[in-house]
Amino acid sequence: MPETRLDLARIQAARQVIDPVFRDTPLYRCEALDPVLGCSVRIKLETANPVRSFKGRGTEVVADGLVRNGPRAAVCASAGNLGQALAWSGRGRGLDVTVVASRHATAAKLDRVRALGARLELVDGDHELARERAAAIARHDGIRLVEDSLDLETCEGAATIGLELVAAVPSFDVVLIALGGGALATGVGHVVRSLAPGAEVICVQPAGAPAMTRSWHARRVVTTGPTNTIADGVAGRRPIPEVLADLLVVADDAVLVEEASIIAGMRLLLDHAGLVAEPSAALGIAAILADRDRFAGRQVVTIVCGGNVDPHAYRGWVGPA
Amino acid sequence: MPETRLDLARIQAARQVIDPVFRDTPLYRCEALDPVLGCSVRIKLETANPVRSFKGRGTEVVADGLVRNGPRAAVCASAGNLGQALAWSGRGRGLDVTVVASRHATAAKLDRVRALGARLELVDGDHELARERAAAIARHDGIRLVEDSLDLETCEGAATIGLELVAAVPSFDVVLIALGGGALATGVGHVVRSLAPGAEVICVQPAGAPAMTRSWHARRVVTTGPTNTIADGVAGRRPIPEVLADLLVVADDAVLVEEASIIAGMRLLLDHAGLVAEPSAALGIAAILADRDRFAGRQVVTIVCGGNVDPHAYRGWVGPA
Repeated sequence: MPETRLDLARIQAARQVIDPVFRDTPLYRCEALDPVLGCSVRIKLETANPVRSFKGRGTEVVADGLVRNGPRAAVCASAGNLGQALAWSGRGRGLDVTVVASRHATAAKLDRVRALGARLELVDGDHELARERAAAIARHDGIRLVEDSLDLETCEGAATIGLELVAAVPSFDVVLIALGGGALATGVGHVVRSLAPGAEVICVQPAGAPAMTRSWHARRVVTTGPTNTIADGVAGRRPIPEVLADLLVVADDAVLVEEASIIAGMRLLLDHAGLVAEPSAALGIAAILADRDRFAGRQVVTIVCGGNVDPHAYRGWVGPA
Repeated sequence: MPETRLDLARIQAARQVIDPVFRDTPLYRCEALDPVLGCSVRIKLETANPVRSFKGRGTEVVADGLVRNGPRAAVCASAGNLGQALAWSGRGRGLDVTVVASRHATAAKLDRVRALGARLELVDGDHELARERAAAIARHDGIRLVEDSLDLETCEGAATIGLELVAAVPSFDVVLIALGGGALATGVGHVVRSLAPGAEVICVQPAGAPAMTRSWHARRVVTTGPTNTIADGVAGRRPIPEVLADLLVVADDAVLVEEASIIAGMRLLLDHAGLVAEPSAALGIAAILADRDRFAGRQVVTIVCGGNVDPHAYRGWVGPA
């Protein structure tokens, strides 16, 4: 068993408290992508749920814990997907939820956070400033700070994707996982490393937001200056040491992809799979496009982890036919 | 229990032989559509599977039967979705599959039929001519003719969507079902009528392909001249009497929608739900758009039954942001 903060029994228990609407998501071979990508691609689709991303898995675990024995209020910093998910999970349980986001976050995501009944506070800065502000609110108000990737529930929720993957697919060669804060990568990575040890765990991050990938290669936390990517969901600058430690245990590699590959990945998913992926969710396909030889002929799984896009921006990315 | 050719026990048995990749599809409230449509909308999503439509449910039942005690070859006429699904189900079981389609069928669908290893025969005419040709092949070769909507397996497969719906949603007011040959409408309609008798079953067809809807209102088979709709999946001209008889039992209404509403429906599903729907799959949303007062404030379920679109045509339909 890999030595991380995660534990299979806890992940299995987490699965039980997640609303079924987020569980047992589609997982299927998308053969129309094979000739385009030169490998066999399976999609694990996390966009067909009330918040259009995988984040509901983690916030369900968080909210369940709060109802059992915590304050009945929580705050998180979010680029939009965690905030939507926490708002959804909190609303159903009568919790007060506050979401702190950058004023530059995707408008469509912020609209949904508000519509789900959360209090939204915007900061004039990037995601790291939103994290600081959320921590300050939690301290001042004495409410729960939900820290994506640091808080085990967020990793355990994401890890349930891994349980479903290894249960459904008898064998695969590679899983490609979007890398941001690290909850998805460490969660799924822990399960794959434990239960499908022959599979390679490759994390993918935009070259314009490379902090965690650089940290993984350096084996120590490396922070960066301002990020520059359309993949807002994975655009952090300050990796969390505990998460990096786990990632060092479970990941076989961490790679960076250019914006052009991310856009090409979104376009391929639309045209050959009929799927709307947000930029972060196209990172796996982008990694294949950027290094076809590495994946040629192999059995690849990628997690399409979110589909919250601004309609106008999305049309610009996927362009004319 | 409604008196149709269908039977709940048989539908439950059918469910057992369908590959899990087609079952337990996402079903969720899409709240972002509420303010736009003025009602509560739940989506049952049938596009996230290897053939991107619900048709795999029926062809799994057909193919299972053939393996047990039938010829190991089958032929069907198809606008593309049934053909893909039969090719998929047949390939996995070592069956020879022939698909007859109109030369004017959606190219992306025909490409997939070929890629899945089926023999594809094109006819110079519409879907009704393809049906005649498929029947002739079956007679000549002594192989199984799979007739969508007439063959009970196709209705029973589709009906399993209804089982999942009534199991997951405690109560709803209306289910909106795309109406073509009638397998989906009679299948789901039978289950809803049996197990959620308070819900209204409304079938939706394009005004440009109104044969079954006119037949339902006339209570007898009404055929039409050439169809004129982008919703290729539901563009028949000659309703099947047995299917009409079942539809008369299970449907509360059958309505026609204009092409503009179908296009607006596809666009809404893309922009507010992040879903790629083919025209047939947007018929439910189109029906709400065309008659908002009827649905105002109600709990509506619609089945997004397929997502096979030609990328170029699709971009034309959903247009710029």
